[in-house]
Amino acid sequence: MQSYWFGDFTDGRCQPFTGDRGALVSRILSLSTRTDISAIPDWQTAVSCGFCHDRAEYLALLQDACIAAAERSVKEQYSGKDAELLQMVRTLDEIDTVINLLSERATDWYMVRHPAFSRKYRRIPAHTLIRTMQEKSRGALGKVAGEIAQLAETRTALAKEVSARANGVMPNTSALIGGLVAARLMAHAGGLQPLSRLPASAIQVLGARTALFAHIRTRTPSPKHGIIFQHRRVHNAPRGIRGRVARVLSGKLAIAARLDHFRGAADPEFLAKAQEHIDAAGKGGEA
Amino acid sequence: MQSYWFGDFTDGRCQPFTGDRGALVSRILSLSTRTDISAIPDWQTAVSCGFCHDRAEYLALLQDACIAAAERSVKEQYSGKDAELLQMVRTLDEIDTVINLLSERATDWYMVRHPAFSRKYRRIPAHTLIRTMQEKSRGALGKVAGEIAQLAETRTALAKEVSARANGVMPNTSALIGGLVAARLMAHAGGLQPLSRLPASAIQVLGARTALFAHIRTRTPSPKHGIIFQHRRVHNAPRGIRGRVARVLSGKLAIAARLDHFRGAADPEFLAKAQEHIDAAGKGGEA
Repeated sequence: MQSYWFGDFTDGRCQPFTGDRGALVSRILSLSTRTDISAIPDWQTAVSCGFCHDRAEYLALLQDACIAAAERSVKEQYSGKDAELLQMVRTLDEIDTVINLLSERATDWYMVRHPAFSRKYRRIPAHTLIRTMQEKSRGALGKVAGEIAQLAETRTALAKEVSARANGVMPNTSALIGGLVAARLMAHAGGLQPLSRLPASAIQVLGARTALFAHIRTRTPSPKHGIIFQHRRVHNAPRGIRGRVARVLSGKLAIAARLDHFRGAADPEFLAKAQEHIDAAGKGGEA
Repeated sequence: MQSYWFGDFTDGRCQPFTGDRGALVSRILSLSTRTDISAIPDWQTAVSCGFCHDRAEYLALLQDACIAAAERSVKEQYSGKDAELLQMVRTLDEIDTVINLLSERATDWYMVRHPAFSRKYRRIPAHTLIRTMQEKSRGALGKVAGEIAQLAETRTALAKEVSARANGVMPNTSALIGGLVAARLMAHAGGLQPLSRLPASAIQVLGARTALFAHIRTRTPSPKHGIIFQHRRVHNAPRGIRGRVARVLSGKLAIAARLDHFRGAADPEFLAKAQEHIDAAGKGGEA
């Protein structure tokens, strides 16, 4: 049987589609994922099938159905539990960028007021410097420093909220690698569904784009970890086995992401076994 | 007479320099702006001149003098009244960037919560949208919106401070084009001294780098104004005479910047005449 949006062909005979608008939209969306349909026949086929009377009606029906399908797609995309989490992670990263930009600028300004001061030479961490500026500087500079300090507070609060929400939206992935890192993985993949479709090897180097492409183009070593390096189990592992830990961990993460997407609930049995495997890899045992 | 850092040659006879360290530094800095010195002779000339005894002493003295000269240059660069103003303008621009980044991100987030909402379609100005978010959104989004609103307040306060300081540092330029735009011109030139060295034509297109280079490389029309477009006298002028107003204005600005740099005080007579000229250009009179 060959199916098109306006009807089904069986042995050359055509059966026009007779459902209502909602059913037509579902049909279009489900057909759009099929790969065995090469080309859609033109309006004359639809007329001879008995779906419509002329070209104008065919086009009007097609336009209406396409707009309805697009509307439903947008709605589904936005109603996903991961949609807001995605925005939260992106905002978190944006706030980090913003804090860096403003801190750099404020440090330059502070150095003009105190020419002998050199941050690099004194190795002062940024947040200490900001606090000093806030306390010691009059006028606009003190206000800007205060603004940076407050942005840092907002950042901390947002990070907590991201972590909490990630525990709800992706319980398995969060249990393995922590809410914040799980949310970052999801954001980098572009959503929970895209993440659940990634192979383990892609999850392993997610966020290491520059290193990955440098590896593909030239002879640099392949990256062993991307975002998952942020998890203590990876970055605390001894250098020699870090790659193995990252590989085992991302294998389990790929399964966890699928569980999260398709089942949506924590699976204690899987989690216990996965933790065991990862621990073993970290101890230099099973790989 | 041929002068080098260690002494002066008159008719082949050498007179070694005998002043103290401070005098030597002043000598080096003033010699460094001379263009008639091609190459500095080596240490043997200095020894035969009687300035020092051997190569080691020559090098030690040279190193000490160079470091002292560099220190004094840095100090002078930073002690300039324009140094802090420069940092303030740059911070102001950075805050603008930051507000835009965060607003865009927050709008995306808000749209996930309210899928039917479209800012472009509704033509809502950014600050109104931020206020709505701040009032209507719970949790992290409301907090981020609040942060943006506060950044906007800091920006306003900083802009006022920049304007007030510009009136003090560059009274003539500020009187012609307003403190904020004057400070922007100064920041783009890299300081008051570099600004005072620019020809009027460069001041006219300062900040229109992209358009200027497009003009030089290809056949696009030359830019008629850069930062000075921000002044009402330019952007309120009728299209046909806007270029002329910009040209006359930047001519007067070039003189004003020189007055500011070398004299540092307002010159009411010059200002009155300049205003008259610019007004005349705006009315379609003298060009």
